[in-house]
Amino acid sequence: MNHMLRKDAEAVIRHAISAVTPSYAVEKALKDRTFPGKVYLVAVGKAAWKMADTAAMTLGDTLTAGVVVTKYGHVEHAIPRITCYEGGHPVPDEHGVAGTLAAMELTRDLQTEDTVLFLLSGGGSALFENPLIPLAELQSITGQMLAAGCNIVEINTVRKRLSAVKGGKFARWCAPARVLSIVLSDVLGDPLDMIASGPTVPDRSTCDQTLDVVRRYHIQISAQTEACLRTETPKELPGTETQIIGSVRQLARAAADACHALGYETVLLTDQLSCEAKEAGSFLGSILKTHAADGRKIAFLAGGETVVHLSGNGLGGRNQEMALAAAPEIDGLKTAAIICVGSDGTDGPTDAAGGYVDGNTMSALAEKGLSYSAMMSNHDAYNALEAVGGLIKTGPTGTNVNDIAVALIG
Amino acid sequence: MNHMLRKDAEAVIRHAISAVTPSYAVEKALKDRTFPGKVYLVAVGKAAWKMADTAAMTLGDTLTAGVVVTKYGHVEHAIPRITCYEGGHPVPDEHGVAGTLAAMELTRDLQTEDTVLFLLSGGGSALFENPLIPLAELQSITGQMLAAGCNIVEINTVRKRLSAVKGGKFARWCAPARVLSIVLSDVLGDPLDMIASGPTVPDRSTCDQTLDVVRRYHIQISAQTEACLRTETPKELPGTETQIIGSVRQLARAAADACHALGYETVLLTDQLSCEAKEAGSFLGSILKTHAADGRKIAFLAGGETVVHLSGNGLGGRNQEMALAAAPEIDGLKTAAIICVGSDGTDGPTDAAGGYVDGNTMSALAEKGLSYSAMMSNHDAYNALEAVGGLIKTGPTGTNVNDIAVALIG
Repeated sequence: MNHMLRKDAEAVIRHAISAVTPSYAVEKALKDRTFPGKVYLVAVGKAAWKMADTAAMTLGDTLTAGVVVTKYGHVEHAIPRITCYEGGHPVPDEHGVAGTLAAMELTRDLQTEDTVLFLLSGGGSALFENPLIPLAELQSITGQMLAAGCNIVEINTVRKRLSAVKGGKFARWCAPARVLSIVLSDVLGDPLDMIASGPTVPDRSTCDQTLDVVRRYHIQISAQTEACLRTETPKELPGTETQIIGSVRQLARAAADACHALGYETVLLTDQLSCEAKEAGSFLGSILKTHAADGRKIAFLAGGETVVHLSGNGLGGRNQEMALAAAPEIDGLKTAAIICVGSDGTDGPTDAAGGYVDGNTMSALAEKGLSYSAMMSNHDAYNALEAVGGLIKTGPTGTNVNDIAVALIG
Repeated sequence: MNHMLRKDAEAVIRHAISAVTPSYAVEKALKDRTFPGKVYLVAVGKAAWKMADTAAMTLGDTLTAGVVVTKYGHVEHAIPRITCYEGGHPVPDEHGVAGTLAAMELTRDLQTEDTVLFLLSGGGSALFENPLIPLAELQSITGQMLAAGCNIVEINTVRKRLSAVKGGKFARWCAPARVLSIVLSDVLGDPLDMIASGPTVPDRSTCDQTLDVVRRYHIQISAQTEACLRTETPKELPGTETQIIGSVRQLARAAADACHALGYETVLLTDQLSCEAKEAGSFLGSILKTHAADGRKIAFLAGGETVVHLSGNGLGGRNQEMALAAAPEIDGLKTAAIICVGSDGTDGPTDAAGGYVDGNTMSALAEKGLSYSAMMSNHDAYNALEAVGGLIKTGPTGTNVNDIAVALIG
């Protein structure tokens, strides 16, 4: 193993993940802000408690009161001035609805100079919900749409109109107070109206599109539901501001900054990688192979979320598979290495966050008597990487903004 | 369609391919050279006739005599001072052997100040052959090795020792004359000892490795063959020089130069791309998606040869499929386009060289009532691209140095 490259690779990953942890990112976003009136906090999603805890510490007495709605088991301890709710995820339940109602109660009848600090993270779509129709009917409609093969955009178009808070309606509820949304995104490309169905951003979909979906897929709806679907969502929301503090974009940029600080020329390829893990690894490997003899320290970065089409009974995850797929491409190159890691610290059903390979990996596998091609086709990257010391283990990181791959020539 | 991007994309491809045509590249390589003694030309491979024709024109009276060994139907007309042979490809035959013997006769008993100008292109391995054992036994051994699952490196290791010209032996034959090899490469990474089994470059394989292959795969050989396998190939060849004038590397660099000339910032990603065509297209699309809003004109280039695992009964080629796979990634982006082309002007069993897509391709397909996902999974990129004017047709280009993909933000 090239221990210098391994050290660089791990340092880059550590730095990148720390830049998108809820606590670091929320503190950075809030520390230089001032607020003219009272500040009310509403935190929603899987990272809601951590984001709220940091915001409460950063704001101190500036904070008037707050509500947290997060997943079961995610509240670590009480936070002064803040009421914490835990609810169902990924299927919404009454506890989540109760939390949402508390958030609406908190933000009722605010003044123009007041601010609602809306802290949003992954999982918010299920957790932050106040349905305009009975929960059972909402679940039935969602079920019908999934069975009919609707895509996520079509499903959200309908659900936004069946909710009192989605599709910009929570921001309209908070008016005339201003709404500052601070978002930790787990959706590639950060489409704001898609993250938790956009409670605080203007909705781009129309009633016509919504009714068209219902007709095309023959969805059975009640008269009450039809009335909701005919009610337009907010298209303009004055006084709202949204800041994405953590997403795979920030993750990739932080990784690039770390590479730069270590003396690497950096090329940020993409933060929206979504192809097959194995092929992405091969592509990255072919990039390193082309530049290995350039005599420059270069880092190529790719963030996103690759996919694996599983077969066989091996153990692994998309990041481990992507790294292992690059190994034959860079075989024998003394200066090349690739690290691929999930920002949440978990990759597939394993205790590893991802994998590391370099120019020595293939010969190390051969020395152990392991067949690369057999393990690769059995999707057994975990055992292959474990045998050659290529697993990356971080433990749970407390954040989740997709994955980052760093390809180094050093 | 974005006609400005389409125009740029086609101009880049045209320039890149013209830089690696045999005539352009051979003239460029020879025009400033001087030779102390007599110059003998030996041209081998599918582009041999074109390379020899240009060399003869460029050298004029400097050329003493020459031999061309190319594929049936590839001699266009007689060239003064040069004898042309046509032989079997991909299976060697007696006509190719006769041409090889003529080349050896031409280069017998040369002087130190003489030069053998060796012009090599794809297909040379079959066309340039003088077997040390009966042709029938050579064919039997090759057949046995293929059936046993030997890879191309293992097959070449054996075949080099059963040939009077491969594995550096032709250069040794020409000694003490100097040998200037000018190579048009169709092998990714340009491994000189792999292109036509390296007639003029030192061989890195050993007798031990060769005998190990024979034992491991239980290849049946005669005593005569065994004696050949026990004879070592040249490890040093003083007085030889090799210049690669055309390969996917030059193709990619010429494309980068053309992009630069058109005002694009250029990032040469790789010249050794070898992953699945569809996934490579997705990866390139995700790169464009990430940078489309940067406000800069950027070009990302990837050369190589992707693969397609065929299914269905659609029509297409790896370049058309790669381009079409990028279309959903860049859907709606006004400034993004991708062109993928085979440098030989053919892509799969079609009359197209490749494909072009931009941010309008998906909506153009929808307007024609075509299902992107159905055509993609049926590997029917030709018909999809034809419907939206996305086919690139160049006709045969006279060269073959793999493929080039250019992803533009303009």
